[in-house]
Amino acid sequence: MKLKSIPTFHQVEKIHERIKPYINQTPVMSSTAINEISGCEIFFKCENFQKVGAFKMRGAANALLALSETDKAKGVATHSSGNHAQAVALSAKNHGVKAFIVMPENAPAIKRAATAGYGAEIITCEATLAARESTLNKVVEKTGATFLHPYNNYDVIGGQATCAKELIEEVPDLNVVMAPVGGGGLMSGTAISTKALLPNAQIIGAEPEWADDAFRSFKSGKMQYNTRVDTIADGLRTNLGPYTFEIITKLVDDIITVSEEEIVAAMRMIWERMKIIIEPSCAVPFAAVLQQKERFAGKKVGIIITGGNVDVNNLPF
Amino acid sequence: MKLKSIPTFHQVEKIHERIKPYINQTPVMSSTAINEISGCEIFFKCENFQKVGAFKMRGAANALLALSETDKAKGVATHSSGNHAQAVALSAKNHGVKAFIVMPENAPAIKRAATAGYGAEIITCEATLAARESTLNKVVEKTGATFLHPYNNYDVIGGQATCAKELIEEVPDLNVVMAPVGGGGLMSGTAISTKALLPNAQIIGAEPEWADDAFRSFKSGKMQYNTRVDTIADGLRTNLGPYTFEIITKLVDDIITVSEEEIVAAMRMIWERMKIIIEPSCAVPFAAVLQQKERFAGKKVGIIITGGNVDVNNLPF
Repeated sequence: MKLKSIPTFHQVEKIHERIKPYINQTPVMSSTAINEISGCEIFFKCENFQKVGAFKMRGAANALLALSETDKAKGVATHSSGNHAQAVALSAKNHGVKAFIVMPENAPAIKRAATAGYGAEIITCEATLAARESTLNKVVEKTGATFLHPYNNYDVIGGQATCAKELIEEVPDLNVVMAPVGGGGLMSGTAISTKALLPNAQIIGAEPEWADDAFRSFKSGKMQYNTRVDTIADGLRTNLGPYTFEIITKLVDDIITVSEEEIVAAMRMIWERMKIIIEPSCAVPFAAVLQQKERFAGKKVGIIITGGNVDVNNLPF
Repeated sequence: MKLKSIPTFHQVEKIHERIKPYINQTPVMSSTAINEISGCEIFFKCENFQKVGAFKMRGAANALLALSETDKAKGVATHSSGNHAQAVALSAKNHGVKAFIVMPENAPAIKRAATAGYGAEIITCEATLAARESTLNKVVEKTGATFLHPYNNYDVIGGQATCAKELIEEVPDLNVVMAPVGGGGLMSGTAISTKALLPNAQIIGAEPEWADDAFRSFKSGKMQYNTRVDTIADGLRTNLGPYTFEIITKLVDDIITVSEEEIVAAMRMIWERMKIIIEPSCAVPFAAVLQQKERFAGKKVGIIITGGNVDVNNLPF
């Protein structure tokens, strides 16, 4: 059964049970050095160790399970050059469902190969959003496949909510829970679970200054759009959708923006001190903590590390 | 009480109890992708998440605890440009003991800073083994400090043995336990714990072809020496000592050597698939598995990931 409205925490609990066979319960990691540097106690929920290397697996796993048998027979479709493509491809494979993935012609060969490796059919298009959407529409029209939006989809949001749920179940006395904001699917799910489990905790998003649509939307109360898409945090270049805008406006306490330099410095610090490989997007909430140390001083802060799919031949340091 | 002979497993158990407050119990990680590629089930014991970023902390922690109060008052000394220096410095700091670390003038600034950050006194010398040893001798003579050898020391070996002990306690049905061989301290400790806990398991070392002293010593039954020290696996450039040679000859079942290309390919695979930062040295046993897949087919293989201290500005890919 597909969700028709904002997932309740009770629904998130059911979702968690049903996606468990298809996801990893990822570890929560801490570092004495990082805590000393930041002046607070940080608990990193490591979704870089999730299947396909990113939290996107949670939402995709749930979206597949929400389909009717009739829908499953027709397949699923999405357009993505990143982690959502692989998550949909693997989830579809897990259920013997056909996946059609529209990818721009400039998508990295390694991501194309990984997606094809899960048995998905890849449809190449021009590298514009218009071409991606029109190509996807044609695929959906022709095949009857269900379009799985990467974030403006309540089943996807419900799946992403299981990540903060696991984090809080492991560290039940957090004062702050943070996530980066791209399309807002993870932030929305994080807010739903945190509000239910820790009603007194602060729920804070973090965003690159160079992709600050959510920050401006949150502050103005009206959907705003990104004016540039060149932040190094490539997972956060997308805009909020109507569903995620509504949830974030209702449940999130604040959004902090950080500079490109702050993102790279925070990413490097996590690589060097924690010995884990994280995408630039993951470093954004930690960069926000380092930017506003007095605000977080002495607090217990949970941060969701979103993924670890980086090109090791093309690092920012 | 300092050990005067090869540690028994009973002694290793006592050592483990006493060093626990000073070390991390590191996680054991697995990867479906890595298992599919290698055709066996690999359990990586992640000492890259150990304090100071390497297993060396175990041996150093124990060596400090083995000192008499009289010895502690005079301090400890060693020469190292690497992980052992930091491990000795932090262990000394933990007990309020003075540490003198002889470092070659070409030691990376970041390692010098990290060691000084633990409060150690750094004595700079020329970048030759002779200069390091003579400078160390002068320091010891002048201060009365106890020299803590990085591996040819039974207390250090007993500390390193706790790593395989933890691994086997977590995965009690391993068929093979592997470690890289540099000076042989980790390999010796690994062999002691594995022989006691899993008498039927194979104990296998792995070494770079370009630093194959242990391989040749093991095969010939006589101490052999490295003829070149330019392998990328910089933690494995050292020679066995008499203590580690004796233990390895007695307890290890085989040593496999791998090429530089195999090391880099294995390191990259662990970075990309497991999202963890490991030193080149750590990739050596995994490279050996990939080289001899039929030998390990279907087995449960434990591999000790030794450390994660790499210069992210100077990667081999």
